[in-house]
Amino acid sequence: MTHPTVEWQGSLETGVVAMIDQTLLPGRLKILRCREVKQVWEALRTLRVRGAPAIGIAAAFGLVLAVRGSRARGVETFLSEVDRQAKYLAGARPTAVNLFWALDRMRKTARQHVSEPLPKLKAALLREAVTIQEEDLATSLRMAEHGFTLLRGVSTVLTHCNTGGLATARHGTALSIVYRSQELKRPLKVYATETRPLLQGARLTAWELLEAGIDVTLICDSAAASVMREGRVDCVIVGADRIAANGDTANKIGTYPLSVLAKEHGIPFYIVAPLSSFDPELESGEEIPIEERAGEEILRPFGKLIAPPNVKTYNPAFDVTPAKFITAIVTERGVLHPPYTRSIQRSFKDRGEA
Amino acid sequence: MTHPTVEWQGSLETGVVAMIDQTLLPGRLKILRCREVKQVWEALRTLRVRGAPAIGIAAAFGLVLAVRGSRARGVETFLSEVDRQAKYLAGARPTAVNLFWALDRMRKTARQHVSEPLPKLKAALLREAVTIQEEDLATSLRMAEHGFTLLRGVSTVLTHCNTGGLATARHGTALSIVYRSQELKRPLKVYATETRPLLQGARLTAWELLEAGIDVTLICDSAAASVMREGRVDCVIVGADRIAANGDTANKIGTYPLSVLAKEHGIPFYIVAPLSSFDPELESGEEIPIEERAGEEILRPFGKLIAPPNVKTYNPAFDVTPAKFITAIVTERGVLHPPYTRSIQRSFKDRGEA
Repeated sequence: MTHPTVEWQGSLETGVVAMIDQTLLPGRLKILRCREVKQVWEALRTLRVRGAPAIGIAAAFGLVLAVRGSRARGVETFLSEVDRQAKYLAGARPTAVNLFWALDRMRKTARQHVSEPLPKLKAALLREAVTIQEEDLATSLRMAEHGFTLLRGVSTVLTHCNTGGLATARHGTALSIVYRSQELKRPLKVYATETRPLLQGARLTAWELLEAGIDVTLICDSAAASVMREGRVDCVIVGADRIAANGDTANKIGTYPLSVLAKEHGIPFYIVAPLSSFDPELESGEEIPIEERAGEEILRPFGKLIAPPNVKTYNPAFDVTPAKFITAIVTERGVLHPPYTRSIQRSFKDRGEA
Repeated sequence: MTHPTVEWQGSLETGVVAMIDQTLLPGRLKILRCREVKQVWEALRTLRVRGAPAIGIAAAFGLVLAVRGSRARGVETFLSEVDRQAKYLAGARPTAVNLFWALDRMRKTARQHVSEPLPKLKAALLREAVTIQEEDLATSLRMAEHGFTLLRGVSTVLTHCNTGGLATARHGTALSIVYRSQELKRPLKVYATETRPLLQGARLTAWELLEAGIDVTLICDSAAASVMREGRVDCVIVGADRIAANGDTANKIGTYPLSVLAKEHGIPFYIVAPLSSFDPELESGEEIPIEERAGEEILRPFGKLIAPPNVKTYNPAFDVTPAKFITAIVTERGVLHPPYTRSIQRSFKDRGEA
């Protein structure tokens, strides 16, 4: 992609958070420039920026917008402003843990720089947000390497939702492997599910992969079972919005059924996610809060009403795939295998965080 | 519903095949009046009329339109016209067997009346088409009775696509049970999947059930697994487009994954279909031809492009549910249980057709 998914443009004082407005893709590539934190909050809530890693980055930059103009006299006042704004941004989406993870990093950074004058403290916050973005880029590249090794012998993958450059700083999580396979001249082919209700597969994944010259076939979500049964795909690769300590994984609605179907068809099912998507404080997936979104997303998908307007709806944005259906989890620190409670714990120990 | 799904209106000589144009629902209730067989063929092909039993009825009436003006001098010429037009109509959709079944009945009827003068022969054909329609109505009521008994203790069902009045002469196949439960003041609640790509669940099932005052909740296809996991439904009921001798069942794309998921969640999975949907000549589901439809149905669902226009697509209209995932099959002659090879054979013997 020619534009980064989300980035800071300009100086601390007058700069903006620039992001591709993903709700307008693939019809229109428009860069949204946010000057106020509430614009970032709105962009998060309405999925102008989405994808677990990308919303972490956007929130970090959003926090900088929120406090750069602060005239707090004391450090305590400033820190409580940081906390209040972080809480505000965290309320935009409840499921992906990267949002809270990134905001926590920002809050810690503020505390690490309390002894410095306010302008320096603010500059440290912007530096930290940029670091989060840069680390995400490096993380994508490492996941791509590990994943590519895991997928030796695979020629076609099935994927769900969008886990590409648009879901991260660049490259992606699950799709980073696809991009890497192309670089290495052993390109993977992709079946992409359209991913109702918001059609991230049709609008974003198909668009990204076509732009990159990758062989992609778009299917309805309900055709994935036939695609597996007919032997058209060798494995499933998806991302994650939150992974519990036991490996249970929340991801876009429709992921869980793919995992059940993959098992039924003897096809490996892989999660690709950075460690920032893990929430080791949650014992299992049952504790992950699942965002329920407006029925309008089902009823009026393209501005056009497709059902009786008074019909009841149920629209969970995510589902939880139990660890038992997950063949392996690709992270930036290597591939995790079952039992996940142990392999996840070890990953965090290696990282010095548990 | 105030209008029948499809019916003959008027005399043999000047009458029309009238049908609800289902592509315009729920926005608009328009009655399409066909005077020429090619209009019926087009209506079949573009799903203005759909649902296995309904397309059988429409095709039978279409055949009457096709030959009512015939000036064939000899009976042989007339019969070959009947055969040619039946073949033409049969080409409109390849999967649902009811289409071929109804047209075969019409061809047989023509042969049974060869000794009569042409006007009488034509009148016999119209009578036979009306008989097919009337039998379908009675069949729906009998399936409703058998199904209602089977579903004792069930409070909420999950259904896919549209199997209601709009899919048959009236009442429906799977949904006939829901209507019967309401008549008996023990109403079933319904979760309806929207059924991409053509959204028969959102457009037709939700509309029908709301009109009838039934408690219906619309979900995306990919949310069905969550609905099962959360214990929101007690069983799955769907229709069928063709059932092989071993019980393997072709139905709307997305049915097969529901059967796998039902098994995973310990939920019964029921097929509701008249004997006219069975094709005992096919040993298994592998022999059922699966219609592949235009990618435009995925890319441009409501006239609006939702994906890059040049992306490849794969759009099978049906999938096959293996018999092993089917708890029981409800027919007008009772409930069939596994092993289906035996129970299906017995059903046809009872009927004197095998």
